[in-house]
Amino acid sequence: MRILVINPNTSEEMTQDIGVQARKFARPDTEVETVSPAWGPRSIEGHYEDELAAVATLEVIQERAADFDGVVIACYGDPGLHAAREISPVPVVGIAEASMLMACTIAHSFSIVTVLPRIKPLFESMLRMYGLEGRCASIRTTPLSVLDCERDPEAAGREIVKAARLAIDEDGAEAICLGCAGMGPLDKTVEAELGIPVLDGVACGVKLIESLVDYGLSTSRVAAYKQPEPKEIVNYSPAGTALPA
Amino acid sequence: MRILVINPNTSEEMTQDIGVQARKFARPDTEVETVSPAWGPRSIEGHYEDELAAVATLEVIQERAADFDGVVIACYGDPGLHAAREISPVPVVGIAEASMLMACTIAHSFSIVTVLPRIKPLFESMLRMYGLEGRCASIRTTPLSVLDCERDPEAAGREIVKAARLAIDEDGAEAICLGCAGMGPLDKTVEAELGIPVLDGVACGVKLIESLVDYGLSTSRVAAYKQPEPKEIVNYSPAGTALPA
Amino acid sequence: MRILVINPNTSEEMTQDIGVQARKFARPDTEVETVSPAWGPRSIEGHYEDELAAVATLEVIQERAADFDGVVIACYGDPGLHAAREISPVPVVGIAEASMLMACTIAHSFSIVTVLPRIKPLFESMLRMYGLEGRCASIRTTPLSVLDCERDPEAAGREIVKAARLAIDEDGAEAICLGCAGMGPLDKTVEAELGIPVLDGVACGVKLIESLVDYGLSTSRVAAYKQPEPKEIVNYSPAGTALPA
Amino acid sequence: MRILVINPNTSEEMTQDIGVQARKFARPDTEVETVSPAWGPRSIEGHYEDELAAVATLEVIQERAADFDGVVIACYGDPGLHAAREISPVPVVGIAEASMLMACTIAHSFSIVTVLPRIKPLFESMLRMYGLEGRCASIRTTPLSVLDCERDPEAAGREIVKAARLAIDEDGAEAICLGCAGMGPLDKTVEAELGIPVLDGVACGVKLIESLVDYGLSTSRVAAYKQPEPKEIVNYSPAGTALPA
Amino acid sequence: MRILVINPNTSEEMTQDIGVQARKFARPDTEVETVSPAWGPRSIEGHYEDELAAVATLEVIQERAADFDGVVIACYGDPGLHAAREISPVPVVGIAEASMLMACTIAHSFSIVTVLPRIKPLFESMLRMYGLEGRCASIRTTPLSVLDCERDPEAAGREIVKAARLAIDEDGAEAICLGCAGMGPLDKTVEAELGIPVLDGVACGVKLIESLVDYGLSTSRVAAYKQPEPKEIVNYSPAGTALPA
Amino acid sequence: MRILVINPNTSEEMTQDIGVQARKFARPDTEVETVSPAWGPRSIEGHYEDELAAVATLEVIQERAADFDGVVIACYGDPGLHAAREISPVPVVGIAEASMLMACTIAHSFSIVTVLPRIKPLFESMLRMYGLEGRCASIRTTPLSVLDCERDPEAAGREIVKAARLAIDEDGAEAICLGCAGMGPLDKTVEAELGIPVLDGVACGVKLIESLVDYGLSTSRVAAYKQPEPKEIVNYSPAGTALPA
Repeated sequence: MRILVINPNTSEEMTQDIGVQARKFARPDTEVETVSPAWGPRSIEGHYEDELAAVATLEVIQERAADFDGVVIACYGDPGLHAAREISPVPVVGIAEASMLMACTIAHSFSIVTVLPRIKPLFESMLRMYGLEGRCASIRTTPLSVLDCERDPEAAGREIVKAARLAIDEDGAEAICLGCAGMGPLDKTVEAELGIPVLDGVACGVKLIESLVDYGLSTSRVAAYKQPEPKEIVNYSPAGTALPA
Repeated sequence: MRILVINPNTSEEMTQDIGVQARKFARPDTEVETVSPAWGPRSIEGHYEDELAAVATLEVIQERAADFDGVVIACYGDPGLHAAREISPVPVVGIAEASMLMACTIAHSFSIVTVLPRIKPLFESMLRMYGLEGRCASIRTTPLSVLDCERDPEAAGREIVKAARLAIDEDGAEAICLGCAGMGPLDKTVEAELGIPVLDGVACGVKLIESLVDYGLSTSRVAAYKQPEPKEIVNYSPAGTALPA
Repeated sequence: MRILVINPNTSEEMTQDIGVQARKFARPDTEVETVSPAWGPRSIEGHYEDELAAVATLEVIQERAADFDGVVIACYGDPGLHAAREISPVPVVGIAEASMLMACTIAHSFSIVTVLPRIKPLFESMLRMYGLEGRCASIRTTPLSVLDCERDPEAAGREIVKAARLAIDEDGAEAICLGCAGMGPLDKTVEAELGIPVLDGVACGVKLIESLVDYGLSTSRVAAYKQPEPKEIVNYSPAGTALPA
Repeated sequence: MRILVINPNTSEEMTQDIGVQARKFARPDTEVETVSPAWGPRSIEGHYEDELAAVATLEVIQERAADFDGVVIACYGDPGLHAAREISPVPVVGIAEASMLMACTIAHSFSIVTVLPRIKPLFESMLRMYGLEGRCASIRTTPLSVLDCERDPEAAGREIVKAARLAIDEDGAEAICLGCAGMGPLDKTVEAELGIPVLDGVACGVKLIESLVDYGLSTSRVAAYKQPEPKEIVNYSPAGTALPA
Repeated sequence: MRILVINPNTSEEMTQDIGVQARKFARPDTEVETVSPAWGPRSIEGHYEDELAAVATLEVIQERAADFDGVVIACYGDPGLHAAREISPVPVVGIAEASMLMACTIAHSFSIVTVLPRIKPLFESMLRMYGLEGRCASIRTTPLSVLDCERDPEAAGREIVKAARLAIDEDGAEAICLGCAGMGPLDKTVEAELGIPVLDGVACGVKLIESLVDYGLSTSRVAAYKQPEPKEIVNYSPAGTALPA
Repeated sequence: MRILVINPNTSEEMTQDIGVQARKFARPDTEVETVSPAWGPRSIEGHYEDELAAVATLEVIQERAADFDGVVIACYGDPGLHAAREISPVPVVGIAEASMLMACTIAHSFSIVTVLPRIKPLFESMLRMYGLEGRCASIRTTPLSVLDCERDPEAAGREIVKAARLAIDEDGAEAICLGCAGMGPLDKTVEAELGIPVLDGVACGVKLIESLVDYGLSTSRVAAYKQPEPKEIVNYSPAGTALPA
């Protein structure tokens, strides 16, 4: 099986770390390729950057998805996820969605521990849109930027643990979803310190894609994720190829 | 007062019609300018086109918004709305949001009558994200594409009336929000036939921007709509100028 | 355009202050008349007073509404709002509803800062009834009575700022709705201190009525706000005239 | 034990029928007194009449409640219920609330069968306010006015059965709440025809008041139902006595 | 009237205390019999014990319910309640459900004060399932085990008061539901200290069964609580008799 | 990896079919063992049978789970799921939960197609408890009993397709969850006829357990799924061994 893991931002170091994490939990016979778009923000910490990254990610999908069995979008805002399902010939999962769905099988309620406070409303909207707000105990933010997680993972780990402890003690969190792809490699370290399950969306995303492919499930085409209507897109030449036939 | 009304798609005829509609209900001293992006889909009928149009719209906002007192995004999926609020120095409203909020003041519950069935899930997500699902009696679709509304308004009007009647009789709708900017010019005709209020988002958006400006309200910068963090956006040169300082 | 702003309580000073505030943000060609009922509680701080004030307000509407283009009910419990829509020939908005709807266009979530703690459950019911609880970060109360706001606006301002800061820091409020008509004149002062948008319902109500009138929208008559069935009302002679034909 | 059952409208025949129904299911040692206000609408079929009836009902409560152990407000909109709890020295239940709470103990979900379609939104607001919308399968209306139920009970029964059958077959109702005090006497007849439990709020209200009194529970005074603040009510002389000390 | 009150755990002392409490608030002509199952956990503080106790309770119901007019399941997780309704020929209420429904008639919102923190998620699930989460201000836990309440009621009372005060002050609780049958006898003592209504589910359950019986209501058999389909239950011989014919 | 798939009912044929289905989609290196309890109902079509089957299933878990890497409970009511997590040393998923969570990754909303109408309320409660009601378009029932699916799979398939078509056309379903383990083997046949994804919970459950094990996630022990407190269980000797240490 071949899985394409797209890091929607253009931080090369993060793309590599995501690849290490994805391969670590992939099955031996799963081939993982990681890629980041040709353009876009270095990191994604708000709606504007999320929108740019969504289109950049969609271009990667148009160009590359057909060569894979499934796609993981590896940024916790799940940029472009719904659109990706429209244009991808293979299943697509986002890491936020993946970590939250898997958390539901091992915990009554989970908290998301993430980067800067400004991202919280974006995640709240996502939770509502996914209909999962009833299972989310809280979204806890830290003073960390996305790139801080890359730069000093140890310090990042300390901030994550601090925020997660508040989530457990004050909000009733029974599992922690790491709310940034850059936090993923810290999953087992943080879990060991906290004593409750910690979920990285990249790992979860890879496992869910493997599951979908094994079971032969593909994206529903009946409404939300129907392929785009055939029409002219004026003055637009993405890096990628044409829409899937 | 100067209001910029952006048609996120690249159908020039629709942009003109939107302009006529916007000016029709604007105050005499409100100057309305309509524009569509330099690139993007001819019409927007799904998530993929919505994502492209969002970025194209954001580029218009970066380039033009500073010269206006407020911005209306004139496509019923409100593409790029949250991101627009981050980068625009002036208030921004989307026409879906605007029509739904105003409907709340004249009806216990409203229905949205819109184009093709495939758009319904996108609007459902939007309703959840806006927290307004409790006020929406139903989303009724028609066989109309976006451009059909332009091409044959009379036939479009008949389809809208048919769907709206079902919304009134079966779903308890007390007002109808026209779920496509292209349907806007039909508002008063449809209203006359149905006997209940009919709201076009373009008109509502203009009125809400006028209201915000008169009252001196601007977008909250404390969290969701904080300006983007200063950072490199690799290989990206939008038509517009730099982010607001 | 002529707007009738009704202060549902019988505090004359408050009626005057409401008038000043309403006119301050009304358009130059909007004529605002403020009035309070002939009878009823000096101030409204609970369900009982709200019920009395509702009927007193409805009597004003029966007598006066036909001479105006729209009506604003200027007490944050929106007393009698739904009934007012049944009997008024012109649109009616409540200040709670108006401030909350407008807050939705500039903030991801708002908090209401209001008077005594006992009012909080009434506002919670109102939020549920309006279907807006998903957008409300919190209702924060103060030790202020309604008339305290009139008596010592400066002290009131300090209490409002204190409560609003808690709403911002602990509840994630991105805008503040002033939960009492008497707090309205403090809007811009409080906003300057807090650095996030502050909304007075009287100002918002006037702007929404102007918007409805400009756009030619009137209350839906199909169900919730149908005119009362013709019937005898025993032993009741309101100050006003008969029901609208 | 003495229970005051107030018919908020001024239809004397209905007050008598309510009395018969209340006494039929009251315990032998429970004394029931029924009363209607000195003024107000003949019947209650919308928000306006509900508001008038609320104040008229509150006047009865001020004058009479202190002589009883509990009060039932016998109109399905529960007019003035929250205010009544503020001013009554003894517990107060509304018949809508009572029938819905008791239905929860014998059915997974209930439907309300009621009078004219225009009342449906009012009941929807009530359900939201009570937080019981999750248990209500549907609100089914009939062509019956409130007084039709009095005038021709047999015909009314037929309409109720017809609507209830739709609620059972299409909405999954497992019990039927009769959504009008005037329908109450038909409870057992309709139940016999339908084969599922049918609840009249008057009977339920009496049983709940008996329960509250037996268990020694009284209205919480800590917030929502605190007694009104002492203050002047200008130009208002209700039929009744002063507020409870 | 004869009511069977089942203590689902096998603590004999608790069964006796429950009996005292049930009789204290039952009507003089109501005969109360208390019983605990022949097998099962000494106390119920989690899902596993709840499941065992459910079946043990169902066996009691099969054997005994036909001799009574109604059944109360006296453990705050309401173990086996839905199944009990399927097999019992007479109405069944759970004490959690009973206390919460009755709390709705005297308070805008209630909190549950209960035993160990581990029980909180089980109660949250129950609240969601009952559709009553909108009325519940909070679930406050204590360090008390179920049997602690029996062993040292005075100390238990102090813990309950401490947790309830937090519920009132921080969560807006207007009434307290005692979240364990073993806490029931403390109801009036705790109420006297707190100054707001305190509800024991056993007392509430007895009153609701009396109410259902007086009004002649029985469990709906149309769907959720239809009698089990006739079928073989392999290798199972409950203490009790066969299913009701 | 070794997975224990428990069929909570005692129909041996169904257990075998479940085994075939589980192995069909398991990874080559996953060993699947299927088992049904030593006692309990032949099939599960209501709350009573669900409760019995829960305890019987828990006994299997106590006896066998420690020898496996994960457990799947293969009945669509997920009997005993929460309790199973308390006592199992390895992760446990239910097939309802598993199919719904996986459906969320390929469809905007799913419908459940299941057996007899009486089961619908049980599934509604489950959806609320899981917090997934926002993603479920509808629960569609058929005239099929559980064992009908075994007896005549072809006829069962026709009924499932009929109900699923209604779910797609009238409720907006984009994927179908087969609401009975006995329907599982029909997944790909039904999918081929419908043209939208069809999910069998057994297959989904196996894939999710494989995912949890690969990623090294285990059940959170902090609250909901803490191991039972050590205590006496009177007169109870399950087939299995003692609780996990």
